[in-house]
Amino acid sequence: MSDTGRLLVSCPDQPGIVAAVTAYLRDRGANITHSAQYSSDPEGGSFFLRLVFHGADPLELGDGFAAEVAAPFGMQFRLTDAHAPKRIAVMVSRSDHALLELLWRWQRGYLPAVIELVISNWPDLQGEVARFGVPYHHIPVTAETKATAESRQLELLGGGRFDLIVLARYMQVLSEEFLERVGCPVINIHHSFLPAFAGADPYARARQRGVKLIGATAHYVTEDLDEGPIIEQDVVRVTHAHTVEELTRLGADIERTVLQRAVTWHCEDRVLMDSSATVVL
Amino acid sequence: MSDTGRLLVSCPDQPGIVAAVTAYLRDRGANITHSAQYSSDPEGGSFFLRLVFHGADPLELGDGFAAEVAAPFGMQFRLTDAHAPKRIAVMVSRSDHALLELLWRWQRGYLPAVIELVISNWPDLQGEVARFGVPYHHIPVTAETKATAESRQLELLGGGRFDLIVLARYMQVLSEEFLERVGCPVINIHHSFLPAFAGADPYARARQRGVKLIGATAHYVTEDLDEGPIIEQDVVRVTHAHTVEELTRLGADIERTVLQRAVTWHCEDRVLMDSSATVVL
Amino acid sequence: MSDTGRLLVSCPDQPGIVAAVTAYLRDRGANITHSAQYSSDPEGGSFFLRLVFHGADPLELGDGFAAEVAAPFGMQFRLTDAHAPKRIAVMVSRSDHALLELLWRWQRGYLPAVIELVISNWPDLQGEVARFGVPYHHIPVTAETKATAESRQLELLGGGRFDLIVLARYMQVLSEEFLERVGCPVINIHHSFLPAFAGADPYARARQRGVKLIGATAHYVTEDLDEGPIIEQDVVRVTHAHTVEELTRLGADIERTVLQRAVTWHCEDRVLMDSSATVVL
Amino acid sequence: MSDTGRLLVSCPDQPGIVAAVTAYLRDRGANITHSAQYSSDPEGGSFFLRLVFHGADPLELGDGFAAEVAAPFGMQFRLTDAHAPKRIAVMVSRSDHALLELLWRWQRGYLPAVIELVISNWPDLQGEVARFGVPYHHIPVTAETKATAESRQLELLGGGRFDLIVLARYMQVLSEEFLERVGCPVINIHHSFLPAFAGADPYARARQRGVKLIGATAHYVTEDLDEGPIIEQDVVRVTHAHTVEELTRLGADIERTVLQRAVTWHCEDRVLMDSSATVVL
Repeated sequence: MSDTGRLLVSCPDQPGIVAAVTAYLRDRGANITHSAQYSSDPEGGSFFLRLVFHGADPLELGDGFAAEVAAPFGMQFRLTDAHAPKRIAVMVSRSDHALLELLWRWQRGYLPAVIELVISNWPDLQGEVARFGVPYHHIPVTAETKATAESRQLELLGGGRFDLIVLARYMQVLSEEFLERVGCPVINIHHSFLPAFAGADPYARARQRGVKLIGATAHYVTEDLDEGPIIEQDVVRVTHAHTVEELTRLGADIERTVLQRAVTWHCEDRVLMDSSATVVL
Repeated sequence: MSDTGRLLVSCPDQPGIVAAVTAYLRDRGANITHSAQYSSDPEGGSFFLRLVFHGADPLELGDGFAAEVAAPFGMQFRLTDAHAPKRIAVMVSRSDHALLELLWRWQRGYLPAVIELVISNWPDLQGEVARFGVPYHHIPVTAETKATAESRQLELLGGGRFDLIVLARYMQVLSEEFLERVGCPVINIHHSFLPAFAGADPYARARQRGVKLIGATAHYVTEDLDEGPIIEQDVVRVTHAHTVEELTRLGADIERTVLQRAVTWHCEDRVLMDSSATVVL
Repeated sequence: MSDTGRLLVSCPDQPGIVAAVTAYLRDRGANITHSAQYSSDPEGGSFFLRLVFHGADPLELGDGFAAEVAAPFGMQFRLTDAHAPKRIAVMVSRSDHALLELLWRWQRGYLPAVIELVISNWPDLQGEVARFGVPYHHIPVTAETKATAESRQLELLGGGRFDLIVLARYMQVLSEEFLERVGCPVINIHHSFLPAFAGADPYARARQRGVKLIGATAHYVTEDLDEGPIIEQDVVRVTHAHTVEELTRLGADIERTVLQRAVTWHCEDRVLMDSSATVVL
Repeated sequence: MSDTGRLLVSCPDQPGIVAAVTAYLRDRGANITHSAQYSSDPEGGSFFLRLVFHGADPLELGDGFAAEVAAPFGMQFRLTDAHAPKRIAVMVSRSDHALLELLWRWQRGYLPAVIELVISNWPDLQGEVARFGVPYHHIPVTAETKATAESRQLELLGGGRFDLIVLARYMQVLSEEFLERVGCPVINIHHSFLPAFAGADPYARARQRGVKLIGATAHYVTEDLDEGPIIEQDVVRVTHAHTVEELTRLGADIERTVLQRAVTWHCEDRVLMDSSATVVL
């Protein structure tokens, strides 16, 4: 039994939401320790609320909250146990930087999550992952075997076993069907630039274009690749003198920073959806 | 009559605060459009809340709120009219950068305030200030005339005529008595470095020390100079190759940025006090 | 007669360039006080050099340098008087932030340039510009009058009267013919984002997309609009909670910062061209 | 035999230095691929130069350069083989973040160095270090055993076996005698703040003071602890809402970033000394 929970709420904005939610929690003995809210527009917009509370078991509150508060206000809500770490599976290809940053932070207790599984289409990182005691599944993917490979991936990832899939530089496009069936959010890290360079050799093209900043974007994966809701972005300054190799290293550093922030916020239940954008509370 | 207000609350943390506050507002027809809260420690800490609401006149709510909500919870609170711009007086010496940034932002409608008065111990900036239609009072200060000068300043600044005094590079130390009698908060911009260089020629000493960042700090002025609660800080990268003149220019740019942010947040009623630190909501 | 100059050199890379250039200057009594160089690739790449020297008149050195050093190495070079401020004309529409930042810096002596002329397709900023003692030419532009308007602009701007044209939020596309005939570089400030939002209402679209950074890019103008060589870029963090109005203000702040840096570097002869990218030395 | 070298020069500034140095290299068949220079003041200041060249063996050039160029100009200089990685020993206590970042970057080939040895006054990190195949020496240090411990450390570190000692969160003060006898530079990472918080519990005190930025400083160690020449500094934004634990994590991230930059630049021979400050070329 837990006595610390998080409540995430979104609904059409109207007067009285916060009063109703907080009165409900108070009457169950819950003390609110953190609260953040956002309204996209007080007149006809959407309302978003994140509360952390203790003194009541979040798993006991759901039915009552649904009937007494959520229904009258037309709310979508989520109640989570703040002490239950999220179960994460990571998909990766051959670059280790983003994966290792996550493993490292998890091992130190910085990540409110358990990394339970790594799937890769390459065998390269088996040894690195084994050091952390995490199972590593090598599932090769070619154009011909993609459907079969996704079936094997779904056997490992599906069935509600995970709260989050993280693509930590996984260089294969996931099919629409995979995304529908995997049953949990998927976060990707994208090497996006100013201006963005989609496609092959992004750092070589960034250098040719002479950009003065390179960056990375962490986003939820939707069918429309690289267009999912953005969770976090950051950049680093570069100059004409940086070689493609140096840009790639700087890019790797900013990628791991941005991805770990996005994954941490997700695991802390800070990220809500406002149509195609995120609200990070 | 206004129908948009801000409510700032601080009190010892305990269960039920938010429920009580929001129920009170709901019952007066007020719809909360922005809310931010912070608890320094749910067990025995302090609680801070900032609400923006519309649909009720903030100036009508004070007496009821004091009796029904503030008293039972031991709250300090402030209710302000969100449409009433803060009345600001600026004190300055000879450097114009921080002052002009404020005048410029005010003129464009970026600053929720009215700059009503400039006082300087030098005549230099009279022309610049006149362009903005703001009265400029030249009150020279020497070691001998300091007490008299402060009396003249207090005649202009006292009596509740201002909501905020901004020291936009005012190079005189204000006396303890002045601070007691002026009757409103005073914000200062300080060229603080990593490590800090108090005293004369800060940029020359920063260069000699070989720092790689220079910065600025905006803080409320207390008797203990340069030790008041910090509102905002920022830095800019520098190298060995920057001359003292270039450091001074870069420092001026970071000073005006940091000061305008602090003044804007203050005028939006975002800054609360937690003993010697600020809570910016 | 000046005794402080800058020498900008670009040529195919090969051994002995620096030795030849520096020996030439030493033999004319010039002492090098700043030097920066860059080679895109020691094997078959391009070489770029910027030197600041004193003790010799830069305008006396050109013929000898051309014959003795530039010709043997296949150099393009430029010798400038470091004490001669660049002559700048600014083109602007109705937004004043980028223009005022330049006027302000020039007035304080921060900009190694003289702003001699402002041209606008609107009358709005006449008063602001008059305060700085700079002539303001209002030349309206419509689809029908564009050719005529550009002819009038060229009468004011052409004939080698200016070293630089700055588009400080000038919302008209300049014709290919204008760019050919104006006879000096043109710098533009572009509100580019991650991802970029070309076209109308960029800040509204950035908000809808939920970006976490907004930025600006200063670049030389070429026929291919918004694709010219980038001189400087920077970004500022934003959140879901920023309104379009707030994004526009933050964008204005980053635009004026980025534009003034680019203009300053250009006026200090720091910017060289490496095909479609800049080398900032 | 190497054919790629770096030349570091510092001397009193005077005309003709660059011409003399580059002519010497050209005459030995060396092609300069990178060059950076700095003069603290053309009139009576110091001159600093870093060159990278290929086509000549740096170890063959020293005697001739000393006699023909360095002596006439009163130069201090250093010629290094650009392909010879620096030999590094790391000293650490119980925090692993700064050490692991260095090991990780070295393992990927990002650090132009070999980490040959780790010394700790605690046994905690033995397992982590063993994974990288690096010997780990546990040498406990108490007030009573400090002199003996330093003798044992010097047996491992002395005799010119290392090019650099890195203190990656080593929580013991090194004696003046140790620093004299160790025979190579020592780089330390310091959790310095705005304002700086020396002594115990820096993050708790930073939180109490309400700073809005926390930072880190990498510097060479001198007898005057925390006052040695600064190589690199950086900061990260924090708010009132960050707990001491969160500040400590954010501080750890900025510490490892700042330390790895400083160590990388040192290993690339980019850092020269200008009395108590560094020149990073």
